[in-house]
Amino acid sequence: MQDLTHDSFTLTRDYPVSPERVFRAFSDPGRKRRWFAEGEGFIVDSYALDFRVGGSESAAFRVDTPEFQSEEIRNQTYYLDIVPERRIVLAYSMSNAGVPFSASLQTVTLEARGDGTRLTLTEHVTFMEGADGTERRREGTEQLLDSLARELAAEAVS
Amino acid sequence: MQDLTHDSFTLTRDYPVSPERVFRAFSDPGRKRRWFAEGEGFIVDSYALDFRVGGSESAAFRVDTPEFQSEEIRNQTYYLDIVPERRIVLAYSMSNAGVPFSASLQTVTLEARGDGTRLTLTEHVTFMEGADGTERRREGTEQLLDSLARELAAEAVS
Repeated sequence: MQDLTHDSFTLTRDYPVSPERVFRAFSDPGRKRRWFAEGEGFIVDSYALDFRVGGSESAAFRVDTPEFQSEEIRNQTYYLDIVPERRIVLAYSMSNAGVPFSASLQTVTLEARGDGTRLTLTEHVTFMEGADGTERRREGTEQLLDSLARELAAEAVS
Repeated sequence: MQDLTHDSFTLTRDYPVSPERVFRAFSDPGRKRRWFAEGEGFIVDSYALDFRVGGSESAAFRVDTPEFQSEEIRNQTYYLDIVPERRIVLAYSMSNAGVPFSASLQTVTLEARGDGTRLTLTEHVTFMEGADGTERRREGTEQLLDSLARELAAEAVS
């Protein structure tokens, strides 16, 4: 067998804003870039989002901290299904210096809960040689959902 | 929860030709169209293959048999990783009359076994509302691998 590993995980979060607001943080390129691509220690070389079924999203960035400088890491996403304010289904690959190291199928569903929204994210991921594995991917995805919470909070007070 | 179901299956086949021959049946548009899109009872309305990382494949067809005529069914594929003669990683959606009913992450690996090739296909699939489910998907994928066997046999004697 080749060195491929398959895994899955599911994350759930509750946000204190409507599904419409949460959905807009995924569909609007400026908002999505803020919580998804930008962050301390990351240099974003390029970002583009064409949010529609059949559209794609690409982010190229480098980690640049005193402890570690990465090569160019690229996230390349394809949108497979979108139901506004309810569901986003996408596939994405991650590559390091042009070499893919993972491929994922990710489903995000949004449900109204009182005045808020429950987000459920399920990812099926295949890691190729040299990938860092499921625990790091889950942690990284949790950090993104935390970043989304900060984006939504900043919008609510602005 | 919304009506989404997640499932996975793995299929293994041995073909009596080299990995290079099997790989070419995936990479060559004419060969791929023959075993993947065409078949008795299917009318192919369009087929296109751009076999490269970041490239896509689309097939639009209708089932037309005495018992059943379908609306237009579309398979839209994105290639996430390709290692020639060893590995193909792709994501695809299936839609019926423009409405996606499934999204999949599929990994195909090829390994030399004597004079032949062992093919291992792993699919992670998410079904939306109205989908026919894992058993039909597994059967349909097994039929495709049978069709690939016939394509390879026809090439071997031609």
